[in-house]
Amino acid sequence: MTPNVEAARAALSHLDLIEKPKLIRTYSRDCFWYSPVLKSRMDHLEADFIACPRNEADVIEILRTCYTHDVPVTTRGAGTGNYGQAMPMRGGCVMHMRHMNLVKSVAPGRVIVEPGCVIKDLDAHCKAHSGQEVRMFSSTWASATIGGFIAGGSGGVGSVTWGSLRDLGNILRLRVVTMEAEPRVLDFTGEELSRVSHAYGTNGIITELELPLAPAYEWTDVLLSSRDFTAAATFADELANEDGILLKLASVYEAPTAHAYFNRVAPHVTDKDHLVGLMIAPHNMDSFLTFLARRPALKMIYRSDDCDWQKKPGPVFEFGWNHTTLRAIKVDPSITYLQVRYGYPDHMNLIEKMRRAFPAGEVIQHLESIRMEGKVAFAGLSLVKFTTEERLDEIIAIHEAAGALVFNPHRYTLEEGGRQHADDTQLSFKREADPKGLLNPGKVITWDRPDWDYSRMYDFANDRREQA
Amino acid sequence: MTPNVEAARAALSHLDLIEKPKLIRTYSRDCFWYSPVLKSRMDHLEADFIACPRNEADVIEILRTCYTHDVPVTTRGAGTGNYGQAMPMRGGCVMHMRHMNLVKSVAPGRVIVEPGCVIKDLDAHCKAHSGQEVRMFSSTWASATIGGFIAGGSGGVGSVTWGSLRDLGNILRLRVVTMEAEPRVLDFTGEELSRVSHAYGTNGIITELELPLAPAYEWTDVLLSSRDFTAAATFADELANEDGILLKLASVYEAPTAHAYFNRVAPHVTDKDHLVGLMIAPHNMDSFLTFLARRPALKMIYRSDDCDWQKKPGPVFEFGWNHTTLRAIKVDPSITYLQVRYGYPDHMNLIEKMRRAFPAGEVIQHLESIRMEGKVAFAGLSLVKFTTEERLDEIIAIHEAAGALVFNPHRYTLEEGGRQHADDTQLSFKREADPKGLLNPGKVITWDRPDWDYSRMYDFANDRREQA
Repeated sequence: MTPNVEAARAALSHLDLIEKPKLIRTYSRDCFWYSPVLKSRMDHLEADFIACPRNEADVIEILRTCYTHDVPVTTRGAGTGNYGQAMPMRGGCVMHMRHMNLVKSVAPGRVIVEPGCVIKDLDAHCKAHSGQEVRMFSSTWASATIGGFIAGGSGGVGSVTWGSLRDLGNILRLRVVTMEAEPRVLDFTGEELSRVSHAYGTNGIITELELPLAPAYEWTDVLLSSRDFTAAATFADELANEDGILLKLASVYEAPTAHAYFNRVAPHVTDKDHLVGLMIAPHNMDSFLTFLARRPALKMIYRSDDCDWQKKPGPVFEFGWNHTTLRAIKVDPSITYLQVRYGYPDHMNLIEKMRRAFPAGEVIQHLESIRMEGKVAFAGLSLVKFTTEERLDEIIAIHEAAGALVFNPHRYTLEEGGRQHADDTQLSFKREADPKGLLNPGKVITWDRPDWDYSRMYDFANDRREQA
Repeated sequence: MTPNVEAARAALSHLDLIEKPKLIRTYSRDCFWYSPVLKSRMDHLEADFIACPRNEADVIEILRTCYTHDVPVTTRGAGTGNYGQAMPMRGGCVMHMRHMNLVKSVAPGRVIVEPGCVIKDLDAHCKAHSGQEVRMFSSTWASATIGGFIAGGSGGVGSVTWGSLRDLGNILRLRVVTMEAEPRVLDFTGEELSRVSHAYGTNGIITELELPLAPAYEWTDVLLSSRDFTAAATFADELANEDGILLKLASVYEAPTAHAYFNRVAPHVTDKDHLVGLMIAPHNMDSFLTFLARRPALKMIYRSDDCDWQKKPGPVFEFGWNHTTLRAIKVDPSITYLQVRYGYPDHMNLIEKMRRAFPAGEVIQHLESIRMEGKVAFAGLSLVKFTTEERLDEIIAIHEAAGALVFNPHRYTLEEGGRQHADDTQLSFKREADPKGLLNPGKVITWDRPDWDYSRMYDFANDRREQA
C-alpha cells in the first residue's frame, strides 16, 4: 500500500472496512471473466482496501478522504457485471454498497431505494407492499444490486415490454455524490439522468434511486421446443408483438444450447431442439395457449404452473440474458459471448445472415426479444466458441459489416463496450464531478486519451495519458 | 303489439318489464344518430316492451319465452353505441342489462363481472379492491356498460398500450346464453371468444365477462397545442413509441376542432391551433416533460395535476374517441364522422394524403394512437361536414382507394361496419345458437342474404330474405 492509500485507509478506519487479503481479492473482482480477453487483462487487479459505507454520509466521507489523498475509488454492488465495470484498474479503494440496501418508500408506480439493495429483495418489498415489482432486471436478480444494474446495465428481463434502461421513463431520479474536495449531493431527473446512468460510477456515486414499478404477477414460466430455428425466432417475435398478451421475457436459444448447457432442461430435449423461454402474465395464459395452438411447429415442454418434471428447472429467466452464457461456460470453459443489436425491421434477416456466416458451432444464436423505439426486435447474446482474440475481433467485424451493432463485452471502457464514441454528457459531467479522475479509473478512454482512434483495444496500463 | 309479442310479454310479466311508451321509446334507442344515414333509417324503430333481467336465470327465461313465441330480442347496455348496435329492427323485446351489474370477483390482473356494470363503477370497484382498472374503455366510460363495450366496441382509451379488444388477451372469458327452445349456457375462452365478442348480441347473450386488468394510476391529463399539424401527429406517434413512458391515451385534433367544439378548451387556443390530448402515468410525467422539451413545436397548455384554468376541462378522454364527434355535433349538427384505420408503416403519409384530398373544412382529422399487431399507428375518427349520402360514400371511397380502411359507421350490419365480408365463426355459431334468427335481427347480412354483393347499403326492411 502506498503512503497516500495508507493515509486514506487510516483516516477511514472508523468505517466498515474489509482488509483481509482473501476478502479484498474477492471484492476486487466482478464477472469480467466471462470474457477471455478481459480475463487476460484484469485477473491480477486488486484493490488496496474495501470500504462499505452505511449511509450517504459515509459515502461523502470516503470520497472526500480519497480525494484528499489522491486514492482511486471504484464502486461496486454484487459484482455481477461482465464488462469489468467494477474492476479497480489502479487499485485503491473499492466501495462496496452492501449496507446501503434500504427501501425508503413505495407508492403506486414508483419506489425510492438505496443502491445496495439486491433486486430480489427490492421486488419482495414492493410486492408485499402493494403488488408491484421493478419494470426490468438482470438475470442476476437473485444477487445483483439495483444500483449496480442502473450504473452498469442496459436492460434485461422486462425489456420485451419496457425497452431499455436508457429509454425515457425507466429511471425516474438518481441521487449522486461527486468526488471533489467537498463532495456535492445532486438529484438528477429528466435529461440529466443520462449523465450518470450506465456510467460505471466514473463520474459520481449513486446513493439513492427512484424507479418506476410495474404490477407484480405470478409470471408463468414456459419452455417451448422446436426443430425449426426460424419458426422459434418468429414465434418469439410474433408473440412479443401481441399487444394483449403481457410478457416479461421472450428468449430464443439455438440448438444445441438447451441440450448441451441447460442441465435440468436437457432430459426433455435433443441436441437438435431449439428452445424458447417465456414469462407470461398468468391471466394471459389462455390467450397464449390460443396463440401457441396456431403454431404447431412449437411444442410446449414446460409450464411452471403445471409441471411434472422431477427436477424443476428454476426460474426461466435464469436461463436467459447472460445466465445463458454462464451456464454454457460452466459446461465448456472455452465459450464466451457477444452482445448484438438486431434492430427492427431487419432483425430476422440479419439473424439468418449471421447463422450462415460462421462454421457450425462457432457462433450459437441466443436472442432476447426487446422493444427498441417502440418496435419489437432482438438483442443477441450469441454464444461464441473462443479460439483467438483475432478471430473474436473478426467475428465482431463480420456482425458489424452486416449491420448488426455489437456492444463489445470484451472491452472494459465505456466507449468500446458501447458505440465507440465519447458520451459528451457523461464526460463533461466527469470534468465537474471528478476533477482528479479518481472515480473508476481506466473506464473512460476520452478522459485519458481524447485523441484515441479505436483502431485497437485500449490498454489503460500502457496507453493512458491522463488529462488531470 | 302482435299476439305473439303480447303472449311473450304476458308470460314474462313477473319480471321487471318497462311498458310506459315514453320509456319504451327511450330504451329502444342508442346513439345511432351520430350518423345522418342511420338516423334516416332507424329513427322510427321501437321495441314492444323492455325486459330487465336481474340474473342469468331471468335471461334464460326471457330468451326461452321469446323463442317459443318467435319474438325478436335485441340486447342493450347503456345504448352508447354509434353503429345502431342496439336498435330493434323488428321491434319485439329489448333486453336491458341494467340490473346485472355485479362485480363478482377481482384478482391480480383479472376481474369477473356481469355485463350491465357501468365501466366507471367497475373501475371504482377494482381500484378500491387492489389498485387496478380495465385495460381499455370507451370514451363513454361514465355511462357505458362493460358488456356493451365488449359486444359492440373495438377498442378505445388504453388501446395505445394494449391494442384492440379483438387482440388475444384483451378478453379472457365470456359466458353466453343461446336462444333455443332450451337455452344453453356456454363459457368461451381462447379461439372461441371471437364467436361472440363484437357480435352485437346476434348469436348469444353475454351474462358474465372475465377481463384482464391493468394497474390503476392517477393518470395525468395533458393538453398540448401546436400550429403545425404534422408536428402534432408526429409528437403523438413518437411519444406512443417511447417504451418507458406509460400512456393510456394519445389523441390528435386538427384545427379548428379544439377552438370550435371544445368549449372549455376554446379560451386557451385559437382556431389555428391543433391539439394533442394525453393521459400519462403520473410517475412518468418527468420523463414526458423531458420528451416535450425536445420538441418546441408543441406547447403544454394544460396538465390536470397543476391547473389554473377557471373552468376545468374534465377528463381528457372525454374529448377523445367518439366524444370528439359528440362535442362537434352539439355545436354543429351537420357534423358526422368516419372510423379509419391508418396502419403502420404508412400511417403518417396516408394521413397527409387524406388532409390534401378534400376541400377545406369538409374532413377534419381526429387521430387516436393505437397499437396494431405490435406497432403504433392511428385510428382516425375524422369529423365530416355532411352534405349528402352520395358525397359521404365518395369520401369513404377516396379513403379506401388510398389504402385507409374505413369501418363505416353509417351502416348497421356487422359486415358493412366491419371489413365487408361474412365472419364465418360468428355466422356458424349463430346457426347453432339462434336457429330462428331472433337475436338482434337485421344486423347480419350473411344471415339474411348470403348472396349480398355490398354494391349498395343493405336495407333490412326491403332486402331481407331470411334463412330461417
